[in-house]
Amino acid sequence: KRTNTQNTTRKLDIGGIYPPIATPFTEKEEVDYQKLDENLQKYSKIPFKGLVVQGSNGEYPYLSVDERLEVVRRVRCILPSSMLLMAGSGCESTRATVHMTEGMAQAGADAVLVVTPCFYGGRMNSQALIHHYTKVADASPVPVVLYSVPGNTGLELPVDAVISLSQHPNIVGLKDSGGDITRIGLIIHKTRLEDFQVLAGSAGFLMAAYSVGAVGGVCALANVLGEEVCDLERLCLIGHWDKARELQHRLIEPNTAVTRKYGVAALKQAMEWFGYHGGATRSPLQPLLHTELQQLRMDFSSNGWL
Amino acid sequence: KRTNTQNTTRKLDIGGIYPPIATPFTEKEEVDYQKLDENLQKYSKIPFKGLVVQGSNGEYPYLSVDERLEVVRRVRCILPSSMLLMAGSGCESTRATVHMTEGMAQAGADAVLVVTPCFYGGRMNSQALIHHYTKVADASPVPVVLYSVPGNTGLELPVDAVISLSQHPNIVGLKDSGGDITRIGLIIHKTRLEDFQVLAGSAGFLMAAYSVGAVGGVCALANVLGEEVCDLERLCLIGHWDKARELQHRLIEPNTAVTRKYGVAALKQAMEWFGYHGGATRSPLQPLLHTELQQLRMDFSSNGWL
Amino acid sequence: KRTNTQNTTRKLDIGGIYPPIATPFTEKEEVDYQKLDENLQKYSKIPFKGLVVQGSNGEYPYLSVDERLEVVRRVRCILPSSMLLMAGSGCESTRATVHMTEGMAQAGADAVLVVTPCFYGGRMNSQALIHHYTKVADASPVPVVLYSVPGNTGLELPVDAVISLSQHPNIVGLKDSGGDITRIGLIIHKTRLEDFQVLAGSAGFLMAAYSVGAVGGVCALANVLGEEVCDLERLCLIGHWDKARELQHRLIEPNTAVTRKYGVAALKQAMEWFGYHGGATRSPLQPLLHTELQQLRMDFSSNGWL
Amino acid sequence: KRTNTQNTTRKLDIGGIYPPIATPFTEKEEVDYQKLDENLQKYSKIPFKGLVVQGSNGEYPYLSVDERLEVVRRVRCILPSSMLLMAGSGCESTRATVHMTEGMAQAGADAVLVVTPCFYGGRMNSQALIHHYTKVADASPVPVVLYSVPGNTGLELPVDAVISLSQHPNIVGLKDSGGDITRIGLIIHKTRLEDFQVLAGSAGFLMAAYSVGAVGGVCALANVLGEEVCDLERLCLIGHWDKARELQHRLIEPNTAVTRKYGVAALKQAMEWFGYHGGATRSPLQPLLHTELQQLRMDFSSNGWL
Repeated sequence: KRTNTQNTTRKLDIGGIYPPIATPFTEKEEVDYQKLDENLQKYSKIPFKGLVVQGSNGEYPYLSVDERLEVVRRVRCILPSSMLLMAGSGCESTRATVHMTEGMAQAGADAVLVVTPCFYGGRMNSQALIHHYTKVADASPVPVVLYSVPGNTGLELPVDAVISLSQHPNIVGLKDSGGDITRIGLIIHKTRLEDFQVLAGSAGFLMAAYSVGAVGGVCALANVLGEEVCDLERLCLIGHWDKARELQHRLIEPNTAVTRKYGVAALKQAMEWFGYHGGATRSPLQPLLHTELQQLRMDFSSNGWL
Repeated sequence: KRTNTQNTTRKLDIGGIYPPIATPFTEKEEVDYQKLDENLQKYSKIPFKGLVVQGSNGEYPYLSVDERLEVVRRVRCILPSSMLLMAGSGCESTRATVHMTEGMAQAGADAVLVVTPCFYGGRMNSQALIHHYTKVADASPVPVVLYSVPGNTGLELPVDAVISLSQHPNIVGLKDSGGDITRIGLIIHKTRLEDFQVLAGSAGFLMAAYSVGAVGGVCALANVLGEEVCDLERLCLIGHWDKARELQHRLIEPNTAVTRKYGVAALKQAMEWFGYHGGATRSPLQPLLHTELQQLRMDFSSNGWL
Repeated sequence: KRTNTQNTTRKLDIGGIYPPIATPFTEKEEVDYQKLDENLQKYSKIPFKGLVVQGSNGEYPYLSVDERLEVVRRVRCILPSSMLLMAGSGCESTRATVHMTEGMAQAGADAVLVVTPCFYGGRMNSQALIHHYTKVADASPVPVVLYSVPGNTGLELPVDAVISLSQHPNIVGLKDSGGDITRIGLIIHKTRLEDFQVLAGSAGFLMAAYSVGAVGGVCALANVLGEEVCDLERLCLIGHWDKARELQHRLIEPNTAVTRKYGVAALKQAMEWFGYHGGATRSPLQPLLHTELQQLRMDFSSNGWL
Repeated sequence: KRTNTQNTTRKLDIGGIYPPIATPFTEKEEVDYQKLDENLQKYSKIPFKGLVVQGSNGEYPYLSVDERLEVVRRVRCILPSSMLLMAGSGCESTRATVHMTEGMAQAGADAVLVVTPCFYGGRMNSQALIHHYTKVADASPVPVVLYSVPGNTGLELPVDAVISLSQHPNIVGLKDSGGDITRIGLIIHKTRLEDFQVLAGSAGFLMAAYSVGAVGGVCALANVLGEEVCDLERLCLIGHWDKARELQHRLIEPNTAVTRKYGVAALKQAMEWFGYHGGATRSPLQPLLHTELQQLRMDFSSNGWL
């Protein structure tokens, strides 16, 4: 068992804001690399720490192995080297995840984000998940970020597994999208002796997460309101809590609309409204219904964003 | 429809910390009023805003109608008049809740806390709940605080119902025990034009709740570590976020232990350790197993409280 | 530990069909005993095994202690002595349940149906529930039927608890409303050496329950289509499975409509259509919306019942 | 909209019992084709209707695209042509599912079993799923069987979607692993005018499913106790319900043990006990703990199977 003192090298600093970028598709549902490039040009000018490529908003379960790697390569080409490229490399099996992780590193990822396997959720207990992540982190050429997203996987990475994994020298942090702030606080507390960094997985609880010690956020909404999410980060970091609160409040509804409420199709639609290319979703994801579209618009406009 | 400007009188200020007090029982499971009195003497010296009597930690579903009223009378007798007595008056039917609310007011409650009815949870939609709370608030001689505690009821009071009810002149706030900080932030945002106050329903997310605009907390842990929870409040209010965070972190595990993890029996046991009278629980609640007791102790000691 | 051979007296035979009767209310939400009487006159002519008074369809959580007992007294007066009166006596605390059970027996109940306590659901494990039911069954002057209704309580009485409790000489069976037919089959299998009887808690899975060994059903739909549910029983008992299947199929949609889908208000509405008195529900239960009413009617008419 | 009378050609008859075969792996987690062949030789002598290759017990989410196809090819080579090969071809995206379906048909599948996509479960409503399955069925060279397995996907294919899809000439039935017998009965009732066949997805509710009109079952337990599951089918078909019930009862615990309780690792272990090759699971699935192994053994032995 490793102890803290043995971790003499500091782990990669992942603190900051990341948009988990969407993957634009053409009408024929092919990856639209041209539009992706144009989005990246714009994102490069926002004070993000980096980008997450193939988080759940990237429709990664709908991409082939080749597409997943190619998208990362393209992002790396466009993205300034000062910006961190965190690539989602999670697959259901450990062996596929190891393989994808190696591929992502070769394609230019600075770190990988590894979602919990979930199909056999009833058996994905701490022991199985610790085994999985240890194998992946042992093999990975780049630092590993754990990824718990119960809204998609039906599974929360158990706190005791996170604590145990925080001691691995190649595991640098956790993206927690569940939004249980008590859990987030506890994880930060229990890993305080490790160099372990927690990122909020959504803009809806970003300020609260900063309050209990998170160091950043991977926020779907940052695809649309990137400057604003970075503003919220800045206000939290300099301790302007009143202004932060006001901004945070106005981000909750639009954030929920592009995530839990209407999902990726809404995120892509909102991107179009704000000068980015969202493009189509891949099937079986469907475009929004007219009434959903109206409500989505309202969720932005009633908070002063449209 | 009422508008903000019509609410010319400010609503009762409920901001601050409250222990939702336990009901001590004798070995024969009778209410132990003597021990209750002694606890109240001690609580009276802690800078609480007041006490909640018959929140879920008070085993109110196990008390008869007469016992519920008698306990409130006793608390009112002992409690300094400067401290607010908020009494849980929720029942399943609207008529019983109205009746209990009137009884509580007569017994000396300054405000009532009304849990969502839940047995017919599938039909407790916004319309039914708005109807219920409106009837209760119309009839209540004292201000009403909404109470959402999905861990016990399986039901979260919907945000749109809260927003609608926030406009009622006799509804002053919400105790939210669900701990979804995004939801709490949204409720505060959407009721900002009303004089509506949100209390965190647990110490585990108290700091985060303050960060997004809550005005206090009803915290089971305050039965045990009352001074410490009030300290956390103070640190949040004066903006000492770093110190607050450190304290908050140390309160999460003990708080979870006496609530979600081991429940009322654990709360009562911990009270004994800290100089209060917990006493027995009423059946079917059972005393803790030996291993649970050890783990409970560890949840306090490993955070420096024992 | 009791063994089978010690149970020399056979337990009360509870096999057959029971409507869990609704409690008619006046417009002012008072119990309408006159209408109750008229319903009972009609039910007395249907080949039911008996009636369940204050199952979840009886709105028992909305009745006062006095009302609960008075309703049972009235039913006993009207009901032919050949029909079994099974009264719901469950409360949250063990002591209240014991008291109510004694009251129900005195009021004329032949057996009591005891729902799982559920408010502290996280602590209602097998140990607590075995303790609860043992105390109640020890004290009860009449046989006890266990009652598991997760749709209302959020809690399923664990199989191991049922097996253990089946050995109690005063516990005669289980009403299982969860509808998990695998679980029902397992319970019947594991209690085969005891004189333990399982009743399906809904008409939707009545035939399937008979196929795996249930001896009857407590079916909300029997308030409306009593003869038909008894027909289904008869067809299952004489092994006319093809005819039974056809009838079962036509009962599923109306049954779901008056239970899970629209609840007690729908049951009461449907009763009116079929010549019974449903009356109003107590608040917070609300009358059906117009569109719900239309859909409810369709659920009966499209299956040939209206 | 198609009507029944237009479906002049009868759909493929899929009635009968299928083991959803496990994929044996070597210690190095490679597919062990030799052991697979030996299992198939044995399965060929049991009166199965056919085999399901790459149902959830086949660890298909852990197989690469190439492995998925190769396994089907091998099974087709060994399996007598009289036995139906139903291959799981579901993927998350519609395009990948179409592609895999074509590949499976080319590899020799007689029919494909298409699981509901689930990662974006919140958006997988009836509209999206009808769209998905229609595209797949339109493109598939072989008949399509719908597959609802909420235990793995967190998602139940909605009844209205099933009814709508039952009218597609290339969709022949549904494998329902949820075990909600009311739902199964309703689906059979509402698709009675179509030539639509429902298979129980587990041996635990096989008899109940036959009672309400299912035509067969895909049963993990048939990998271990194949003859016995076929016996149960036979007893149901000839109407020997008492004998069927006795057999059904004895199958529930072992079935639950190799599915919901301990999963694929337990299935593979039990296969070893009964003369088949289970082999290792792929990581992150872990071997059973010693205590689990003992309990698994007990679940078979206490029912007279070991």
